[in-house]
Amino acid sequence: ISINIYFWYKLQRQVAKLLQLKAQLGGDEGKHVFVLKTAKGTRDYNPKQMAIREKVFNIIISCFKRHGAETIDTPVFELKETLTGKYGEDSKLIYDLKDQGGELLSLRYDLTVPFARYLAMNKITNIKRYHIAKVYRRDNPAMTRGRYREFYQCDFDIAGQYDAMIPDAECLKIVYEILNELDLGDFHIKVNDRRILDGMFAVCGVPDEKFRTICSTVDKLDKMAWEDVKKEMVNEKGLSEDVADRIGEYVSMQGGQDLAERLLQDPKLSQNKQACAGLTDMKLLFSYLELFQVTDKVVFDLSLARGLDYYTGVIYEAILSQTIPAPAEQNGADEAGVSVGSVAGGGRYDGLVGMFDPKGRKVPCVGVSIGIERIFSIMEQKAETSSEKVRTTETQVLVASAQKNLLEERLKLTSELWNAGVKAEVLYKKNPKLLSQLQHCEETGIPLVAILGEQELKDGVVKLRNVASREEVDVPRADLVDEIKKRTL
Amino acid sequence: ISINIYFWYKLQRQVAKLLQLKAQLGGDEGKHVFVLKTAKGTRDYNPKQMAIREKVFNIIISCFKRHGAETIDTPVFELKETLTGKYGEDSKLIYDLKDQGGELLSLRYDLTVPFARYLAMNKITNIKRYHIAKVYRRDNPAMTRGRYREFYQCDFDIAGQYDAMIPDAECLKIVYEILNELDLGDFHIKVNDRRILDGMFAVCGVPDEKFRTICSTVDKLDKMAWEDVKKEMVNEKGLSEDVADRIGEYVSMQGGQDLAERLLQDPKLSQNKQACAGLTDMKLLFSYLELFQVTDKVVFDLSLARGLDYYTGVIYEAILSQTIPAPAEQNGADEAGVSVGSVAGGGRYDGLVGMFDPKGRKVPCVGVSIGIERIFSIMEQKAETSSEKVRTTETQVLVASAQKNLLEERLKLTSELWNAGVKAEVLYKKNPKLLSQLQHCEETGIPLVAILGEQELKDGVVKLRNVASREEVDVPRADLVDEIKKRTL
Repeated sequence: ISINIYFWYKLQRQVAKLLQLKAQLGGDEGKHVFVLKTAKGTRDYNPKQMAIREKVFNIIISCFKRHGAETIDTPVFELKETLTGKYGEDSKLIYDLKDQGGELLSLRYDLTVPFARYLAMNKITNIKRYHIAKVYRRDNPAMTRGRYREFYQCDFDIAGQYDAMIPDAECLKIVYEILNELDLGDFHIKVNDRRILDGMFAVCGVPDEKFRTICSTVDKLDKMAWEDVKKEMVNEKGLSEDVADRIGEYVSMQGGQDLAERLLQDPKLSQNKQACAGLTDMKLLFSYLELFQVTDKVVFDLSLARGLDYYTGVIYEAILSQTIPAPAEQNGADEAGVSVGSVAGGGRYDGLVGMFDPKGRKVPCVGVSIGIERIFSIMEQKAETSSEKVRTTETQVLVASAQKNLLEERLKLTSELWNAGVKAEVLYKKNPKLLSQLQHCEETGIPLVAILGEQELKDGVVKLRNVASREEVDVPRADLVDEIKKRTL
Repeated sequence: ISINIYFWYKLQRQVAKLLQLKAQLGGDEGKHVFVLKTAKGTRDYNPKQMAIREKVFNIIISCFKRHGAETIDTPVFELKETLTGKYGEDSKLIYDLKDQGGELLSLRYDLTVPFARYLAMNKITNIKRYHIAKVYRRDNPAMTRGRYREFYQCDFDIAGQYDAMIPDAECLKIVYEILNELDLGDFHIKVNDRRILDGMFAVCGVPDEKFRTICSTVDKLDKMAWEDVKKEMVNEKGLSEDVADRIGEYVSMQGGQDLAERLLQDPKLSQNKQACAGLTDMKLLFSYLELFQVTDKVVFDLSLARGLDYYTGVIYEAILSQTIPAPAEQNGADEAGVSVGSVAGGGRYDGLVGMFDPKGRKVPCVGVSIGIERIFSIMEQKAETSSEKVRTTETQVLVASAQKNLLEERLKLTSELWNAGVKAEVLYKKNPKLLSQLQHCEETGIPLVAILGEQELKDGVVKLRNVASREEVDVPRADLVDEIKKRTL
């Protein structure tokens, strides 16, 4: 019996603890508790972030429109088979939808494959279009560096059979213009060509079947030292030291038009048809970039490889010089900040549309994709350190009163202003204090207050107050709209 | 043996047929054939549709901004449990993502629940925000009537503890302004209140536990005759004929402020606390709508019920009078066209945020959601029948030449124009014909052509041609930007 009582008390204590825990978690009614979070690797945008996003989008869209682009939109999910076989190893990062009966669907992984599907489906053989939308990758997010599972891409592509390198040059001009206008500090754009890479692999003695996998290894040169890349080539990919060293010589080369010319004289490369075609186009590309006055930021870099399978010609990538300060809590004392890395990339993909066409009809394409999240991260940090306040509304005037019982008059005036196209607010209180009305203006940056009182109503005027200067002036009610518009141009 | 030979030939014929079929399907190389389509119930937007969409969004966003709203964005998918228990029976229409390890996710079903989750998660107790984004419902699509599985919602909501009916009136004012500006013909907005409905059910003798299901049946009155609705109440939901008839009397009532006043005198309804609260608020709402001058389109309609569970007070729905002409191929000779039906709806939901708050803290909310797809359908049809051509680009000028070997000069001038902020295009051909350059302008609506030739280059001028009038004038190169801007204001 004593043991039973002992257990009884122990049980009672445990029950009490559990009840306490339940109360803490579930509130008084013991409701189910939700985990209040967004899905891993995703985030909400608050109004301040949206204001910054709008600014960035405006710059990008203006540029796309300046270059004569139309825009399209495609669904957020595609038939699973539309995405199959387009992304190589990265296919494992595709989000699939649950089979709930009906079609097998996946969230889009980029905007390029849906674009190619759209062209083939509608038999479009030439178009210049932009598409700004979210894409989805089940990657390991590094959100402090602006890497998410749901993120925006801003794509500009030119499809059609045109003379060599003219659309390609325009894509690079666009990247240059956008990064300049976004004012993100210094940047450079690396350019290479898949045909030059393939030719280089061939003359170095890489067996044909290893081109793609060696290309992936070369792609790591922006994050790894040559020694480690070489090790991977030799130990994992089975190249001989000699072959790897020959590759090493080429991929260390950087330059401009001059480098293309020099390599066209290279005794080995000049013997390779692919390499020659790529190098001749590279020369031509640089001559157009010269006309566009953008060569100061463009580097012909033989180490640029890019991951995606579908590129067939010119490839490029834009890199910001600036680093994002690493967040303090994760930051060792010595760590200098995280390189933002690539913010735009693209290239020529002449075979992708043909993959969707029943008769394999090809539509040559070249395009660029601007990665917006990293740019947002920088702009947000800029906004935080800046003294200038980001406004999240565009309200021009608050309709206010210092006296009681004027709600109806305030609503009437507000409605008049809305009808005249003025951006106006009114507090949703019967008798708000003047101070709280003025505070609302200060907090949200509303520049003007239209104040109504018995006297003003009698005189047919409105007292218009400048929030910053505190100046007040009586404006005849009939002139109010014009006066507000004049003051908030 | 004869039988074997018979079967042999039969088999051969079948094999031949199959091979033929395979060849038809798979092309010469026998590649895998993609089904070239978008997922069921979804569609691409082509450039013309995007131009219309942009126009509609601009009107809606301007209105939201005029009313002082901020904007937010949330991810396209939420944790599955965030959506659980919010949509009643419609939960079966939610798209789930495949369990690929990690969290269980679902595509958002509307923007209201993510908004409530956002408020609770960030402990926001007042905000006026809009959110325009796509939502997903595995419904049976009726795409000709503008019903899709992926569609836009344009939501405007006011969260916060305010004096009664002021924010509610503003939501109705917003619907009125937007439908007016979109110029979609006549419309009306039905208003009711969940408390009036509940009170009505109570005084008619509906048992408490049947309120919700009877509410769903009443909701069908916009598509079914009263006789059929009554049948459902009696035969399926188990009400007595008497009770149903009493409901029938109430739900046939329509009016304005006067009806609210009359019902406040109703011997039965006036005894019900809920109904009185609702009716008193309805009176107040109409007095504000009077100040906003929108009562000409607003009807207090006791048959309006609305499907969603989360409404707690005022509810409303906007209906266009216009019908969409039914597509010819599906159209019986007598069919007059399809009613567009509801294009906006909303109401007050004071309990939803509290469902996400661990302590159940409530944040009163009221909002409206504008359904854009049906509006698009109408606008698209309008655009098709209109003589005015929809432009899909904003290009101001095409840089052209009538002579050969001037590609470089064309690219140089185009670049100058881009740098000066002019929207300019150039054909991606070395030596395009002047005619094909002019045709491109005609087709895409580019109003001006800047023509370069040897003589113009020598004289330091550009020949500026008006595409419509065919007038040409020599403009000094230094003045070109100003001249283009002046002519394309």
